[in-house]
Amino acid sequence: MSDYRRLRVALLGAGAVGSQVAALLLKHGDELADRAGASLELVGIAVRDLDAPRDVDLPRELFTTDAEELILGADIVIELMGGIEPARTYLMQAINSGADVVTANKALLATYGSEIFEAADQVGAQVYYEAAAAGAIPIIRPLRDSLAGDRVQRIMGIVNGTTNYILDRMDTEGADLVDVLSEAQALGYAEADPSADVDGYDAAQKAAILASLAFHTTVPLSAVHREGIMGLDKAMIDAARHAGYAIKLLAVCERLAPEDEGEEGESISVRVYPALVPRSHPLASVHGANNAVFVQAEAAGSLMFYGAGAGGVQTASAVLGDVVSAARRHIAGGVGVGESTRANLPVVPIGRVTTRYQITLEVDDQPGVLATVAGTLSEGRVSIATVEQTVISESADGSGVARLVIGTHKAREQDLSETVARLAASGVVERVASVLRVEGD
Amino acid sequence: MSDYRRLRVALLGAGAVGSQVAALLLKHGDELADRAGASLELVGIAVRDLDAPRDVDLPRELFTTDAEELILGADIVIELMGGIEPARTYLMQAINSGADVVTANKALLATYGSEIFEAADQVGAQVYYEAAAAGAIPIIRPLRDSLAGDRVQRIMGIVNGTTNYILDRMDTEGADLVDVLSEAQALGYAEADPSADVDGYDAAQKAAILASLAFHTTVPLSAVHREGIMGLDKAMIDAARHAGYAIKLLAVCERLAPEDEGEEGESISVRVYPALVPRSHPLASVHGANNAVFVQAEAAGSLMFYGAGAGGVQTASAVLGDVVSAARRHIAGGVGVGESTRANLPVVPIGRVTTRYQITLEVDDQPGVLATVAGTLSEGRVSIATVEQTVISESADGSGVARLVIGTHKAREQDLSETVARLAASGVVERVASVLRVEGD
Repeated sequence: MSDYRRLRVALLGAGAVGSQVAALLLKHGDELADRAGASLELVGIAVRDLDAPRDVDLPRELFTTDAEELILGADIVIELMGGIEPARTYLMQAINSGADVVTANKALLATYGSEIFEAADQVGAQVYYEAAAAGAIPIIRPLRDSLAGDRVQRIMGIVNGTTNYILDRMDTEGADLVDVLSEAQALGYAEADPSADVDGYDAAQKAAILASLAFHTTVPLSAVHREGIMGLDKAMIDAARHAGYAIKLLAVCERLAPEDEGEEGESISVRVYPALVPRSHPLASVHGANNAVFVQAEAAGSLMFYGAGAGGVQTASAVLGDVVSAARRHIAGGVGVGESTRANLPVVPIGRVTTRYQITLEVDDQPGVLATVAGTLSEGRVSIATVEQTVISESADGSGVARLVIGTHKAREQDLSETVARLAASGVVERVASVLRVEGD
Repeated sequence: MSDYRRLRVALLGAGAVGSQVAALLLKHGDELADRAGASLELVGIAVRDLDAPRDVDLPRELFTTDAEELILGADIVIELMGGIEPARTYLMQAINSGADVVTANKALLATYGSEIFEAADQVGAQVYYEAAAAGAIPIIRPLRDSLAGDRVQRIMGIVNGTTNYILDRMDTEGADLVDVLSEAQALGYAEADPSADVDGYDAAQKAAILASLAFHTTVPLSAVHREGIMGLDKAMIDAARHAGYAIKLLAVCERLAPEDEGEEGESISVRVYPALVPRSHPLASVHGANNAVFVQAEAAGSLMFYGAGAGGVQTASAVLGDVVSAARRHIAGGVGVGESTRANLPVVPIGRVTTRYQITLEVDDQPGVLATVAGTLSEGRVSIATVEQTVISESADGSGVARLVIGTHKAREQDLSETVARLAASGVVERVASVLRVEGD
């Protein structure tokens, strides 16, 4: 094995993923060298605190606090620090020193991706980021390469394990959101500050990355519409189950045909929100903290990619695949292949998006109420597909409250939200219990 | 777009896949050029018969019968003729002329893969074959690149759409194999000579390709154990359903730990056979002509890839992804990345493989029979996990026949087959109704 060319690998960060990457690189070094056609020498691990506890036992002499020195002279730099700074500065330093870089940093890529890719292009370096979306699931190469000759129409992804775990337990056990969340925090599945997960920030970063790849367009994180799961409750999950749906936090990336208002080309929508998914859809069967990405393409049809979306050792698998790819490229020569962003499709605001909806209203149980509601919907260009009415309370005087569950045909988000506002303000609606989008049917 | 470097693309074959590739290349040329960073000029389509009917309308002037001339001077050659010759000769000519090649030819790769890859290595060309296994499903790049830093333990794939369609209809409709097969032939889902599908040849070719990638080992087709579905009948499918299983034709690629008989290293097993899959396993839910590949890796855990395994336009998607990749590589420079085969693990014969089994016997319904059967199994080192006995006929004299369904613990194939032979020869067993392996539990 010793006749392989030596490549110097620098690792930045030794957290849950980083420590596993280092351990596997040391353990399987010979095997990986055979696959890469190059010897992968881990020359150092940059950390903030040399004495911090690690998940894995690693040789003390590899650790350093001097990331900048470590980066100089490395052939491949693996950035697993997370966060924006100093990760961004180090990544740019690595690229500018001519190294290929491997990163799992979705926040960084979703925010500064185009700057990073441009810098890599300028020096002919390659940026690898298979671990930045959906953890161990190979989804970056399939979108970037395997589907590069096709036209992706739509991606629906369960890309955040923590929220899927919470929603799945609410669904299967009838548990309350706050209870499951506290338990997930106690078990280490959810962070002490769960906002990145439950408010959809993590999923939105991944959506930006997936949409950029799928539509050959730079999608800034700011263009991703984002709603989290904290507005959901047990009643909504139960009602969804009763109606044959599961509620999933979805990242939806969609190609939109030109509208007939004289618009010229296609556009795209990128959005994260909890949605009703029919039980028969493969995404409804994604349980626990697993991830899955469902892709519809013009020629390939429907594809699904399923697996562990997070976890130190699982994510390390994706990182090491990138390290082997980077090593192979070094041996093969040539420059890096830049990101494909020349389609440059506009991202439409959420108001332009059309989906089906399920609207749950509590209304006065009086004659004529349904007609009023139906009239308001119709005036708002929201077409009704199904209506289910249930009396939920009756008073002695004959008045009472009924629940109306209205399934709509596809409606434009802006029309829908304006119409719901008018319903809420109308005299007959006591409460808008929920408005949920339906995806995947 | 005209400032892109022009790459000359030659297409060999204009069948179901080839005609779609040509049509999509012509239709989406500008878009693909933007993605590839190169203009993809389809310079010709080599066919045997210029006047043969095509699935798609294509410009007449592109067709030629002179494949050799077309190949000369092409930058990228797409081979979609199928079969061994003349595909092999043309592919080697293309490689030796310095072109990158894209092929969907599983028979060719499974039989002459190492010769082809070696020739490509010598000239620094790249061979792309995403379409050669599981059609539109991106599985080659995930195995070759994304999982290159991991250790694949096991692959279980439904990689033949025709047999899955047949087995699924037998399962869901209680149909007979021969009836469904005739119907599939009438609908064009199955060939007039269905042997490639129903006898497992097609699946075995794909298994050889997947195992080679997963285990970094050249796996010759001759090393793949192969059984088809023609031995299955309605009764077996019904019994499987009753017991909570679906029967699927599986391609199983497995890494085996050293045996304790002083063996040195790991080995692998590659096999295709119909097996019982628990209903709860994701593969049991793969319906119709769809394909799915379930991968278990040391670090990544369980992954699944799902989609259309065949079809002209679906397979064309995978081919065009390869064409874009080839074009990007041409622009980036450098040599091709060779296949990773240095692990060079031995492929064990089927006799060495251990799985669980379900054995269905018809036995004399007499006292002591179960003890005899159990004794024979135990002597043969086959350990019983479950037994279910049902009387299926009774005579007036008190004698009769009972059905014994025996689920075993993991047993070695050779022990199992020898034991079943002894059971069949024993006086008490009237008939060995079926012996099926159980996978995925």
